Amino acid sequence: MTTDLSSTATALFEKMRATNPLVHCITNYVAMNYAANVLLAAGASPAMVHTPEESGEFAAIAGALTVNIGTLSPHWVEGMIAAAQSANAAGKPWVLDPVAHFATRYRRDVVAELLKLNPTVIRGNASEIIALAGGQSAGQGVDSGDPVEQAEGAARALATAQKAVVAVTGEIDFVTDGTRAVRIAGGSPLMPKITAMGCALTGLVGAYVAIAKDQAFEATIAALTNFAVAGSFASQSANGPASFMTAFVDGLHSLDATTFNDTARIEAL
Amino acid sequence: MTTDLSSTATALFEKMRATNPLVHCITNYVAMNYAANVLLAAGASPAMVHTPEESGEFAAIAGALTVNIGTLSPHWVEGMIAAAQSANAAGKPWVLDPVAHFATRYRRDVVAELLKLNPTVIRGNASEIIALAGGQSAGQGVDSGDPVEQAEGAARALATAQKAVVAVTGEIDFVTDGTRAVRIAGGSPLMPKITAMGCALTGLVGAYVAIAKDQAFEATIAALTNFAVAGSFASQSANGPASFMTAFVDGLHSLDATTFNDTARIEAL
Amino acid sequence: MTTDLSSTATALFEKMRATNPLVHCITNYVAMNYAANVLLAAGASPAMVHTPEESGEFAAIAGALTVNIGTLSPHWVEGMIAAAQSANAAGKPWVLDPVAHFATRYRRDVVAELLKLNPTVIRGNASEIIALAGGQSAGQGVDSGDPVEQAEGAARALATAQKAVVAVTGEIDFVTDGTRAVRIAGGSPLMPKITAMGCALTGLVGAYVAIAKDQAFEATIAALTNFAVAGSFASQSANGPASFMTAFVDGLHSLDATTFNDTARIEAL
Repeated sequence: MTTDLSSTATALFEKMRATNPLVHCITNYVAMNYAANVLLAAGASPAMVHTPEESGEFAAIAGALTVNIGTLSPHWVEGMIAAAQSANAAGKPWVLDPVAHFATRYRRDVVAELLKLNPTVIRGNASEIIALAGGQSAGQGVDSGDPVEQAEGAARALATAQKAVVAVTGEIDFVTDGTRAVRIAGGSPLMPKITAMGCALTGLVGAYVAIAKDQAFEATIAALTNFAVAGSFASQSANGPASFMTAFVDGLHSLDATTFNDTARIEAL
Repeated sequence: MTTDLSSTATALFEKMRATNPLVHCITNYVAMNYAANVLLAAGASPAMVHTPEESGEFAAIAGALTVNIGTLSPHWVEGMIAAAQSANAAGKPWVLDPVAHFATRYRRDVVAELLKLNPTVIRGNASEIIALAGGQSAGQGVDSGDPVEQAEGAARALATAQKAVVAVTGEIDFVTDGTRAVRIAGGSPLMPKITAMGCALTGLVGAYVAIAKDQAFEATIAALTNFAVAGSFASQSANGPASFMTAFVDGLHSLDATTFNDTARIEAL
Repeated sequence: MTTDLSSTATALFEKMRATNPLVHCITNYVAMNYAANVLLAAGASPAMVHTPEESGEFAAIAGALTVNIGTLSPHWVEGMIAAAQSANAAGKPWVLDPVAHFATRYRRDVVAELLKLNPTVIRGNASEIIALAGGQSAGQGVDSGDPVEQAEGAARALATAQKAVVAVTGEIDFVTDGTRAVRIAGGSPLMPKITAMGCALTGLVGAYVAIAKDQAFEATIAALTNFAVAGSFASQSANGPASFMTAFVDGLHSLDATTFNDTARIEAL
């Protein structure tokens, strides 16, 4: 089982790198530069386009759309909605990253609107997914206050209710489509000490669903595995969060399929 | 005296790291990513929330608020004012960073509005503090054209007039509450060659006042000392501004209380 | 000829570093931090000021203006137009970077408005310049789909029509004022794998035209040569895109005139 999962993920990794998918990212101000560099290093072609005057038109051109609500404002929300509607109309997958959606009323309202637009994949930390499924999370601000394991039930419920793939990322990631579920190990304890790692990962999920839109579950697993593998290697040479970032992006760029396959740690549940 | 100042700063450093304070940052587009990484590495939990629809609500939740006017626009100014009013109402400290406030009429008007909202701490470079106290600065753009020493009188006057702690940062930092004053040495000549170092430091002052809101003077000293200590170490291994940034963030992350205390160079005046 | 071109570029390099020009940058969210660090390392003083309430006033103060349309919205476009008009009125040079202007109708309309304001220099990748001259480009998103050589005719036509210097950057750069033309070699194959390299280069062109406004052709060549030289050195020590970025910024900072002159590879056509 694990072998099959790894080889599927490795095949998607190879396809993503060969295809160089155009990913339409509407993400927050904090993440934009780092997410773009992560996607470029991993082999995708990111484009940041947010204003409603063009976000709908661009979403129909790109291979996939990602929407991250980290630094919201009404003008951006309009652009997010226009883009998600256009992605849906054009049959393009889209990924929602509900950053700290529980922190304020405005954020809760916006995420409720976005959920109505049927995201293909929802990626969040444990606190975000628990709260999205209606539970009580321990989160404050943008960092998770809950371990991933506590969000597994919430993730399954949310996936079923939304007919979406749900990914909870943390020390060990969890991915489910409501029926199937896997855990993915790897990465580094330094990752939560670097801003926008989750946002960049959301972008990478976009790159994978862009090249495998009928396999959103497998594509999400492949994206998270890509991150975890690169994170494990970067961890070996890093002296702290900033040297980790450098090693991580360099590692994403130099990663090959054999190493990907050998290092992947995907467990079916 | 110096020993007492160092041990107070060290105690606040330990408390900040143990507490992981949530810091609400409204900062400029240039600084957001770097400031977030600096705060995370130093041990705080930054959150960037700017839109007036939620900035007031969030300011009441966070431990402290920081407002930096680097890349202004009317919508953001509304968000800054709502946040500062809410911080005041909730008894939360807030820090003002008046970036290049003398450069345009719009900037001068905005900073005048913000000063009415009683910032707990004001941090700027020498040109900014001189101009804020009504003097003639040599600044153009965002870089200081004046040495810190020339701003000491202006800083004392501003602190007294505003009933705020004022920090002037540069080669040797100066902090005053109008009565007491200290100088803090350390850092690196490379720091002015890296954008958003001052903005990131403003965020770190927020992290310290969040855990010591009744000791804003001591908290500001501790934050500046934290920066200066990490800067001194990074200077030893850097080959230029970018490798300095990496070493600096890594160093903030690995810094311990003994090293902090041994390296602090705080002089009471 | 090549020797003359190199010594002119080297002289402008020395002047730029000695002068520390204030460059008004209106650039995209992705590029802001990196562009600012590139300009600081190279010896300029960047300032990011975009809102129409102050962009016109600031453009008249700065030595040059640069406008990059990477992450557009109506409020920013207003600020760009106000700044370009003010730069023109004050006799200050300005540089246009038409990022992915062909991707959406909104972007095409905005770039048409900006072209009416007579940019001194236009810098883009091959797909952008081909499309700007009315040709059919292979670009999608922000990455070029065409080699530089295919854009040389378009660049000459655009330079003549616009009475502007046109720079096409890529593996080998091409610069023309419609009559004269050069190619500049150097750099690294990693450069397209790093976001905002082109945007940062646009900022650096601004720094050079600020100190040589009557020599926009020579200033543009000098800026591109500065980038290519620093890129060649960074390429020697980089392990991937992120370590390249670090080496590149450090290298810009430590570059001296002798190395600049010895490494410059400028070919007159």
